[in-house]
Amino acid sequence: MRVLVLHGPNLNMLGTRETGIYGTGTLDEIDAELEKLATELGVEVECFQSNSEAALVDRLQGSRGRVHAIVFNPAAFTHYSIVLRDAVAGLGLPVVEVHLTNVHAREDFRRQSVVAPVAAGQISGFGSDSYLLGLRAAVALASREAAAGV
Amino acid sequence: MRVLVLHGPNLNMLGTRETGIYGTGTLDEIDAELEKLATELGVEVECFQSNSEAALVDRLQGSRGRVHAIVFNPAAFTHYSIVLRDAVAGLGLPVVEVHLTNVHAREDFRRQSVVAPVAAGQISGFGSDSYLLGLRAAVALASREAAAGV
Amino acid sequence: MRVLVLHGPNLNMLGTRETGIYGTGTLDEIDAELEKLATELGVEVECFQSNSEAALVDRLQGSRGRVHAIVFNPAAFTHYSIVLRDAVAGLGLPVVEVHLTNVHAREDFRRQSVVAPVAAGQISGFGSDSYLLGLRAAVALASREAAAGV
Amino acid sequence: MRVLVLHGPNLNMLGTRETGIYGTGTLDEIDAELEKLATELGVEVECFQSNSEAALVDRLQGSRGRVHAIVFNPAAFTHYSIVLRDAVAGLGLPVVEVHLTNVHAREDFRRQSVVAPVAAGQISGFGSDSYLLGLRAAVALASREAAAGV
Amino acid sequence: MRVLVLHGPNLNMLGTRETGIYGTGTLDEIDAELEKLATELGVEVECFQSNSEAALVDRLQGSRGRVHAIVFNPAAFTHYSIVLRDAVAGLGLPVVEVHLTNVHAREDFRRQSVVAPVAAGQISGFGSDSYLLGLRAAVALASREAAAGV
Amino acid sequence: MRVLVLHGPNLNMLGTRETGIYGTGTLDEIDAELEKLATELGVEVECFQSNSEAALVDRLQGSRGRVHAIVFNPAAFTHYSIVLRDAVAGLGLPVVEVHLTNVHAREDFRRQSVVAPVAAGQISGFGSDSYLLGLRAAVALASREAAAGV
Amino acid sequence: MRVLVLHGPNLNMLGTRETGIYGTGTLDEIDAELEKLATELGVEVECFQSNSEAALVDRLQGSRGRVHAIVFNPAAFTHYSIVLRDAVAGLGLPVVEVHLTNVHAREDFRRQSVVAPVAAGQISGFGSDSYLLGLRAAVALASREAAAGV
Amino acid sequence: MRVLVLHGPNLNMLGTRETGIYGTGTLDEIDAELEKLATELGVEVECFQSNSEAALVDRLQGSRGRVHAIVFNPAAFTHYSIVLRDAVAGLGLPVVEVHLTNVHAREDFRRQSVVAPVAAGQISGFGSDSYLLGLRAAVALASREAAAGV
Amino acid sequence: MRVLVLHGPNLNMLGTRETGIYGTGTLDEIDAELEKLATELGVEVECFQSNSEAALVDRLQGSRGRVHAIVFNPAAFTHYSIVLRDAVAGLGLPVVEVHLTNVHAREDFRRQSVVAPVAAGQISGFGSDSYLLGLRAAVALASREAAAGV
Amino acid sequence: MRVLVLHGPNLNMLGTRETGIYGTGTLDEIDAELEKLATELGVEVECFQSNSEAALVDRLQGSRGRVHAIVFNPAAFTHYSIVLRDAVAGLGLPVVEVHLTNVHAREDFRRQSVVAPVAAGQISGFGSDSYLLGLRAAVALASREAAAGV
Amino acid sequence: MRVLVLHGPNLNMLGTRETGIYGTGTLDEIDAELEKLATELGVEVECFQSNSEAALVDRLQGSRGRVHAIVFNPAAFTHYSIVLRDAVAGLGLPVVEVHLTNVHAREDFRRQSVVAPVAAGQISGFGSDSYLLGLRAAVALASREAAAGV
Amino acid sequence: MRVLVLHGPNLNMLGTRETGIYGTGTLDEIDAELEKLATELGVEVECFQSNSEAALVDRLQGSRGRVHAIVFNPAAFTHYSIVLRDAVAGLGLPVVEVHLTNVHAREDFRRQSVVAPVAAGQISGFGSDSYLLGLRAAVALASREAAAGV
Repeated sequence: MRVLVLHGPNLNMLGTRETGIYGTGTLDEIDAELEKLATELGVEVECFQSNSEAALVDRLQGSRGRVHAIVFNPAAFTHYSIVLRDAVAGLGLPVVEVHLTNVHAREDFRRQSVVAPVAAGQISGFGSDSYLLGLRAAVALASREAAAGV
Repeated sequence: MRVLVLHGPNLNMLGTRETGIYGTGTLDEIDAELEKLATELGVEVECFQSNSEAALVDRLQGSRGRVHAIVFNPAAFTHYSIVLRDAVAGLGLPVVEVHLTNVHAREDFRRQSVVAPVAAGQISGFGSDSYLLGLRAAVALASREAAAGV
Repeated sequence: MRVLVLHGPNLNMLGTRETGIYGTGTLDEIDAELEKLATELGVEVECFQSNSEAALVDRLQGSRGRVHAIVFNPAAFTHYSIVLRDAVAGLGLPVVEVHLTNVHAREDFRRQSVVAPVAAGQISGFGSDSYLLGLRAAVALASREAAAGV
Repeated sequence: MRVLVLHGPNLNMLGTRETGIYGTGTLDEIDAELEKLATELGVEVECFQSNSEAALVDRLQGSRGRVHAIVFNPAAFTHYSIVLRDAVAGLGLPVVEVHLTNVHAREDFRRQSVVAPVAAGQISGFGSDSYLLGLRAAVALASREAAAGV
Repeated sequence: MRVLVLHGPNLNMLGTRETGIYGTGTLDEIDAELEKLATELGVEVECFQSNSEAALVDRLQGSRGRVHAIVFNPAAFTHYSIVLRDAVAGLGLPVVEVHLTNVHAREDFRRQSVVAPVAAGQISGFGSDSYLLGLRAAVALASREAAAGV
Repeated sequence: MRVLVLHGPNLNMLGTRETGIYGTGTLDEIDAELEKLATELGVEVECFQSNSEAALVDRLQGSRGRVHAIVFNPAAFTHYSIVLRDAVAGLGLPVVEVHLTNVHAREDFRRQSVVAPVAAGQISGFGSDSYLLGLRAAVALASREAAAGV
Repeated sequence: MRVLVLHGPNLNMLGTRETGIYGTGTLDEIDAELEKLATELGVEVECFQSNSEAALVDRLQGSRGRVHAIVFNPAAFTHYSIVLRDAVAGLGLPVVEVHLTNVHAREDFRRQSVVAPVAAGQISGFGSDSYLLGLRAAVALASREAAAGV
Repeated sequence: MRVLVLHGPNLNMLGTRETGIYGTGTLDEIDAELEKLATELGVEVECFQSNSEAALVDRLQGSRGRVHAIVFNPAAFTHYSIVLRDAVAGLGLPVVEVHLTNVHAREDFRRQSVVAPVAAGQISGFGSDSYLLGLRAAVALASREAAAGV
Repeated sequence: MRVLVLHGPNLNMLGTRETGIYGTGTLDEIDAELEKLATELGVEVECFQSNSEAALVDRLQGSRGRVHAIVFNPAAFTHYSIVLRDAVAGLGLPVVEVHLTNVHAREDFRRQSVVAPVAAGQISGFGSDSYLLGLRAAVALASREAAAGV
Repeated sequence: MRVLVLHGPNLNMLGTRETGIYGTGTLDEIDAELEKLATELGVEVECFQSNSEAALVDRLQGSRGRVHAIVFNPAAFTHYSIVLRDAVAGLGLPVVEVHLTNVHAREDFRRQSVVAPVAAGQISGFGSDSYLLGLRAAVALASREAAAGV
Repeated sequence: MRVLVLHGPNLNMLGTRETGIYGTGTLDEIDAELEKLATELGVEVECFQSNSEAALVDRLQGSRGRVHAIVFNPAAFTHYSIVLRDAVAGLGLPVVEVHLTNVHAREDFRRQSVVAPVAAGQISGFGSDSYLLGLRAAVALASREAAAGV
Repeated sequence: MRVLVLHGPNLNMLGTRETGIYGTGTLDEIDAELEKLATELGVEVECFQSNSEAALVDRLQGSRGRVHAIVFNPAAFTHYSIVLRDAVAGLGLPVVEVHLTNVHAREDFRRQSVVAPVAAGQISGFGSDSYLLGLRAAVALASREAAAGV
């Protein structure tokens, strides 16, 4: 089983920007934690970050047939990118939306996710653990689909 | 370490009501899964369900000094019970809000949680796995607080 | 055939509070009228009033398999109790929402019912006749379901 | 005692259009059921359908002094015809608003009635029974007014 | 100079319906007052009332080339009939919107006029005097246009 | 009979500012027209302009017992000065709100008048004629009140 | 194959009213263009205009079994006539909504169509070409339904 | 004279929860201050706290004929409990709404009180002094009613 | 200790305008009551009324260093004068907002106070007692600040 | 004459994603149909798809002087890309907005187009025929501009 | 060339009130900086502060023919004084709106300026530099108008 | 000191598109003016334009440690690109938002900037001077930060 972990815009700056909000861990550290958990769970992960909506769309479209589930942190695109929403909706794969911070405890506009209605579920507020829990969720969903012969 | 799992109103009917939305598993089965995972993680869980806002408030208030974290599915109270919000806000314990269904993919009024802004984070959409992931998140948060000597 | 008549909060004060709005009849008088009509229609009614959301939820949940239809005046809960909405939605029984007053001719907030979308129908504005019409409607719905072998 | 039953636009197509929503009974069948109940109740009914707002206004205006109460299904006009609202408000007769379907469980715009605030009450969701219950309600209101010498 | 006075729906009931709001004068009495003022001002008036949106549209369309200005009380249509708005906008004649009552001191929905933005001006709140002032305004506007050779 | 004509802020610039919107006539010319009409109608007028909300309030308060009616163009205060609204509401005199332009055909914020709900009526869109019609309306209202012995 | 072309209110004034917005072509010219294209496409068209909502409803209801598709310009009714919406929804025929002007580039209220959600599609902004494109679309839809044996 | 002081949900935690917002005084200390002031004013007070909406309703209903006024801090229920609003409205006793904190300076949702429109008045922002001022206000209101023989 | 009592616009008319809403007491009577209570409490009060926003601002600005607290009834300015809000916010003195009437039980626009978020607290609905309670609150706040050496 | 056909994001997945909504035809098939119609109409088309907002902007900007009209399906960008709106507005070429589906019959957010107000017109709901009709419309617009010597 | 610098309400308290938000510089210091820059730019400035809306209006009206441009900080009036907006709109002079703070980063109500739509431009967030930049902008605008012979 | 000037989408078309709104100057001319002013101020500027959100993000991220301040015209991204907002927020550099036109005097959607709350300040409405003033502002901010040893 193979899981794509997709990091949205500005996440490449993790650990350097607004550390009061996002913490001091870097994206590489998160990816390493994910690799470690993947090994534990007996699955493969591939991690990809981009600041570009189009690159994220391309990666989502290209994941069909290649991965069994996706862990997706759309970052700021969460709140307005209907293009990403449609890319997710068209995939036919379980997508788990994750956020480092508790988006419900920040600015009003962060409470709305245009991606969530087409994702399988959402995990927010646990820092890098949001990704690890997201990977567990993704694996569980993909396993269930595999078991069901979907 | 001890974690309280709090089930809100109508969850006692799980497995019998609206199975198309909530699935056929019962609350006892979820509690059993939680017990099993708790054992694995080396923590204790106590589970409590109530249809009563006041009973849930009492349980939240009474958990201070008795548990280290809480996994809370406020069910329909999620969307309007400011009383529960204030009870959570006043606790000084990490509270993980969980939902069986993807509340963002249902009726509009289910997209708003009055509890979320005072919770540590939110997990929704993974059926009984929402609880299991919530337990992991709660344990992680409590461990971190313990480590930090909070 | 058995019909539960459920009276929401403050209805126990009927005939004493705000008689300009709600009239001078008491709840006991309404229950007596309902008993009389039930006899006429050849059905049984049981009447229950509570000021407690949880008690109303418990009664709704407990009515499954015991009654064939419900006449429900959620009173002030009409406008915000999603807990009661979910309890109604999960019942699998025809529920007729009734109101003594014309809720559409009062304060703005009384025009919205969170229960109505999951009820079979709504009757409002006819004083105690709202209940009597509600009983007729409930009996008709239950008879039809019985006839259809639902 | 005489009761006018007023059917709004598109109700002449009943039984042929959108039968999934409105059922397969025709307007003639509803009128026949009304006649039968009227006989039972010892009152007279006259039924009138029109697709024209002006014709409905004319009929409402013309009913003064001729009938003692009105059962009115404004259909799609319910949601915007302030002209009909004003015609009802100016009548000085009890008007019972009825709807075949549960308007609160359909599109958002169907939840608002501009007529309801000036009607005596509203009955919705019981198919042709909405009319029968409406006739009972209208007769009760007119009897009460007669008794009070209004 | 010739002025059309157009009375909207339910105004034929003036003096009989809701006299607490609209007064006890009849439409014929208003028309007589208008005739008298017209004579004083040396102009002709023609008065027309209809409950039908289409009839009002037809009369507006037909007034081109026949009258020099219009005094229009759209009554309840004021608040939603975009059809009448478009009919007025397309006329190329000064139209004075009048209302018997102070629409700004009644229900919220009466504060909005969809006709006003395409009318020359609006007069409301002076009972039958609204019409008389409206006739004066219409004559002044038409005289000015005549003087300007429009 | 004596009528106060009250001109709100910026009206002293009439004829010089935004002549495309407000025309080229000056406030003195309007006052002269008002004087002339007053003579015709056998009443006295006094005209007062101020850019100051407080001065307008003072003049309104001071008019009690001195004048029989008021013609008031609150200009830009129309849309937000609740202080002026309360001053008008407390007067116990008929106040006619007038506007040179058709406020309903301009910016959205000009469609709302906080003064209108406590005025007797409103006249807008007829240039200086709005004042003349307003004077006629004021005189009529005051005459009626005098006749009624108010 | 037979197509009904339905013109809403005020369209009879085309070429004479607001030519800056709607152009100088008349409705007869549009009907002639439609006839010509119909001949080209080997279908029949019938054209009907009315200022009356009821007449448009009657024509829509009467078109069942007589025509295979409808091209409908509801004009100002587009924005509020739920009666027409329900008439369209109940037809079971493909209805193509057309507008001469780009309704999205005009007043805010013209951006909303209550008819569009129950139409097959919408074409707006191309002057009389909107009708011609609409006829092509209608013929294509009807042909496809015919081919599918609907 | 006897005054009921009613404390809403979570107020039992006063002095322990969110002391940055609510201060470090306990509810018992507030009750003691109230007792002391009551003695000074020559009245009796009874204090009651509950986390339960139903218990608060019961206490309000039961206070009729037993007390002469009520000081009520509905806490989080302030913002949504229409049940409590209706219980207050039906009492026929002066009810003074009090809040420890300045609810207008906190989250947006705390600015709205569904209870306030049916209370006699509201006092907020003075910590435990809000209760003391509330008691004075309640005694004054009850004295006035007594004097007026209400 | 010295307290400024500031009365906003139209309050000079107290006892004469809208006595049904504001009562028959005059402002002088309120000031006298305040003087009396001040003597009782061993403090000095100075009272000032103005219809002018600027005069109120000047008085607020000038009170720094001269008084220890302020009781402020902004009257109609409550709902829109951000200038007064900013003047209050910049003072560094405890300001108690008071209202004679229960602003929450009147027109919608009176429920919003732009001043409240920067005031210490708010007291409304108790007639002249609102001022007396406000004076007590102001004295308590100033005493506490004095005690704390602020 | 040359027409650019611009396909927005995710349209490259046509025929594979959400076929229940978008059908099973591929983008290549649509392009082939367009080529065929272009030949018929004696014009040239060039087709371009991109998931990138910037690439679409570049192509729009680069089309000036190269093509005479544009058929543009902005897909999900329709609802928020003000960048594309501004690119279209700045072109000085007729742009026809097309949509495969009836965007007015889907989620609320799809009813708003930020591009439409600056496009010449909009065609939606006819599947691949939307493009063909769009090509006809574009050619007609460009021909008219050519004829007018624009 | 002569530029008027207009300071709105509460700005006379600069350097003493809310220094955390507005800094410790005084208005005199800002005026001195402006004088210095004016000398540099070869223009004259006159500075005027008032807490009174009317005084600001008078100064704006009086500046016609006396100055060539205006730098205006309407302070709290920015958000509601339509009177000032109209005074600015009627001037026919370039007006540069300036703010010390970044109004977009503060309370929601500070994001809206009713003056901005009629100003030439807006500069906010740079402390006293906002004024200096404003002066430069004003001089540039006036020079351009002079050059164009406006 | 080094300042980055960042031009958003469609600004490369300056001087050619919508010259009625944006003027006839080109972006190169603006850059040249900026270079000239930079020399005057003794600083360096680098200018960069892109139609791509991702490219703008990359440039913002890459500017850390390379420049001391940024002048940013986000153009159409101003109104929705939360990605750019987050990139700005994470920079830790003073960012001055500039706009050629007065965005407050155009379409409603242009009045909202999602970037402004995280920028240092905003300058709009002065054509190319907006950039020049922005450069001065940026240099002043950076100098102050340098002076403060930030």
